[in-house]
Amino acid sequence: MITPKRPSGFNEFLPAEQMAFNAMIAVIRLVYEQHGYSPIETPAIELTSILLAKEGGETAKQVYRFTKGDNDLALRFDLTVPLARYVAEHYHELTIPFRRYQIQEVWRAEKAQAGRYRQFYQCDIDTLGTNDLLADADILITAHETFLALGLKDAVFSISHRGLLSGLLAEKKLNKFTTSILRSVDKLSKQPEKNFSEELSRLGINKKAIEEILNFVKIKGTAQEVLKKLQTINLNNKEFIKAFNDLKKLNQYLLAVGLRAKDFMFDLKITRGLDYYTGLVFETFLTKNPEIGSICSGGRYDNLLSHYSKANIPGVGISIGLSRLFNALKPRMVQGPATPAQILIIPLASEVINYSLDINKILNKANLNAFVYPGTEKMSKQLAYANKLKIPVVIIVGEDEVKKQRVTIKNMTSGQQTTIGLAKAVAQIKKMI
Amino acid sequence: MITPKRPSGFNEFLPAEQMAFNAMIAVIRLVYEQHGYSPIETPAIELTSILLAKEGGETAKQVYRFTKGDNDLALRFDLTVPLARYVAEHYHELTIPFRRYQIQEVWRAEKAQAGRYRQFYQCDIDTLGTNDLLADADILITAHETFLALGLKDAVFSISHRGLLSGLLAEKKLNKFTTSILRSVDKLSKQPEKNFSEELSRLGINKKAIEEILNFVKIKGTAQEVLKKLQTINLNNKEFIKAFNDLKKLNQYLLAVGLRAKDFMFDLKITRGLDYYTGLVFETFLTKNPEIGSICSGGRYDNLLSHYSKANIPGVGISIGLSRLFNALKPRMVQGPATPAQILIIPLASEVINYSLDINKILNKANLNAFVYPGTEKMSKQLAYANKLKIPVVIIVGEDEVKKQRVTIKNMTSGQQTTIGLAKAVAQIKKMI
Repeated sequence: MITPKRPSGFNEFLPAEQMAFNAMIAVIRLVYEQHGYSPIETPAIELTSILLAKEGGETAKQVYRFTKGDNDLALRFDLTVPLARYVAEHYHELTIPFRRYQIQEVWRAEKAQAGRYRQFYQCDIDTLGTNDLLADADILITAHETFLALGLKDAVFSISHRGLLSGLLAEKKLNKFTTSILRSVDKLSKQPEKNFSEELSRLGINKKAIEEILNFVKIKGTAQEVLKKLQTINLNNKEFIKAFNDLKKLNQYLLAVGLRAKDFMFDLKITRGLDYYTGLVFETFLTKNPEIGSICSGGRYDNLLSHYSKANIPGVGISIGLSRLFNALKPRMVQGPATPAQILIIPLASEVINYSLDINKILNKANLNAFVYPGTEKMSKQLAYANKLKIPVVIIVGEDEVKKQRVTIKNMTSGQQTTIGLAKAVAQIKKMI
Repeated sequence: MITPKRPSGFNEFLPAEQMAFNAMIAVIRLVYEQHGYSPIETPAIELTSILLAKEGGETAKQVYRFTKGDNDLALRFDLTVPLARYVAEHYHELTIPFRRYQIQEVWRAEKAQAGRYRQFYQCDIDTLGTNDLLADADILITAHETFLALGLKDAVFSISHRGLLSGLLAEKKLNKFTTSILRSVDKLSKQPEKNFSEELSRLGINKKAIEEILNFVKIKGTAQEVLKKLQTINLNNKEFIKAFNDLKKLNQYLLAVGLRAKDFMFDLKITRGLDYYTGLVFETFLTKNPEIGSICSGGRYDNLLSHYSKANIPGVGISIGLSRLFNALKPRMVQGPATPAQILIIPLASEVINYSLDINKILNKANLNAFVYPGTEKMSKQLAYANKLKIPVVIIVGEDEVKKQRVTIKNMTSGQQTTIGLAKAVAQIKKMI
């Protein structure tokens, strides 16, 4: 006998949890579709040359990579790189701007730790083929609507724009360090400022400049506050000005659709770890559960597709890390049923099974979820089964019921039991559930 | 630049196809839930020791297998083995009988050929922890309802029971060859009878016995015809009698819920390739598209879980091979839209974007799917965009509309255009779509 177990770091749900998880996916899918994003799915396996074209370092180490025949293959670690490949590959078959959503698993061999799994769901929306800021605004608006639909009123966006820091560094003639500095900034919220200063110092940047950069990236507040502060900095750099105007416009759009000023803030510390971002970047935190970390992140990546296509295809997108979010929210949730069945039909003898199947069919036709218990065990055992699965209604079928074409309905919540004609059963049950 | 392409043998859809595919999954999920099966999902990656505990040969060759750290891992090749592991692992947390459905991808490195992909969806239902024949009947009934819901009125089950041949072989003292012979029988529909005779001859079985076995497995017809024929054989073997009675009862149950005699046949050639089946086995063919092969297969496996658990956990299940079915049915389908959006909002100037976003929100609140075109290109270009995506309604927003709080609605099918007050827009649009 082989001990039944999963590889370590892999999670799976019991049915009640799976139903709650599926309900969340259904909500996300609904909102994404309401906002007119088209669904796609991509294969779990990509060519490694595609997947690691841009990302090295940590990402490459975490990838599940293997060969089959002559092929160097890997499991996707996010949905953005496969999307870039998809759009480049199918460019002439797609309608541009291409607005898509994708809800699928990704794999990362991260160090196993609480709430972190090696397979998890991402729920992404992206718009490719336009650099219009409305595309950026729309993904944030859609994400906001998604959080509300999930009951997460405390979700707050932390937004920045890579062009701000990039512009500042260009002015200071430090632009050759931009990628390194952005990475150091990304780590600022996880480690002491000292480390940041040391990292920049090692690049040969002087103390005064480090101080200035540090003060700059510590700018944080409501959109209005930050825009005002940036205005006083008044940097005459093209990239900076473009980023400033983008944020200003974004603020307008978000307020126009009804986001409150406290639903988003501007925070120049936000840069996102991945190298492919070029403009707007953001993360999302729950005020009531900051310990979860960002539940939804993304930004603009205007050069990512240049690795796979000669066409100029800018892009912007977000990703909700659903598995982590779900696990973090579990304490907030009430445990639901472990089955979609609303009715269990209990046959008391093998002679009544045909009649039981008949009832089942009538219930299904009325859009009620039901099934006949597979077996004719003692009634008490079958009732216990319904109880354990939290099935709200039970129909008990004995020979008397068959003879008189009636059904005995038991309300599992109240315990009340009533015997009525088959024709009236559906209406009666609908009242109970 | 890296040429954007998938590994060979991997399929993906353009958005219109993906929407049609998702619609099929939604139908299947609905019917499975109506019949009270609980959803679960398992990780794509399993320990190889678990996955290949029972299956060797062809299956092992087709598995995507790799190591990460010290772990020997593999991608699942079906949903049944992971289910067996899941039930054994979580046995004491589950309510038995455990009735579950699972809709996920599986991976097999098969030879690339038309309509065969290396990643495809399976849609499974299984009942574990009971050997009551009603469990077997219920999965067939649920599959039948699923086919009807998908519009596949020509789906016909080909059903057999391994106990029939097994009983016959036991009577002939050939039971040590049962596994080999079952495998040869499985190949009968794909290769000449000669090969079958040769294979059995090589086992040392004499000509007369081979003839008898061949005549036996060629028995095929309506349930009634086959049951009659089996009765005349009148084999006094326990296994045979049990199998005969199972099929007789199954016939009764299927007819009781309204399957027509022509919706299923008994065909003793059906044995299923996989070694884990022990009782009922079946495949499903479309009368109008026999070239697709079986679209839904399964059976009873009462010993599979003994590899992972000391508890006696019999099981029965089916699997719809959705990806293959979908690809085969594509010629039957009408090409649908490439977006869930029902309305495209066209802003004619950047000054009207806030108002456009307002309209978007109103439409979403009324459960209409809509989005604002990301950009202010020429109207003709934006209308062409709506046309290409088959969006039925367009709202055109100019400065005049904002001033008067009105909207101009264009019916993309008829070409008709009308300007009305914002308050009446929703009702007007609902009439159009």
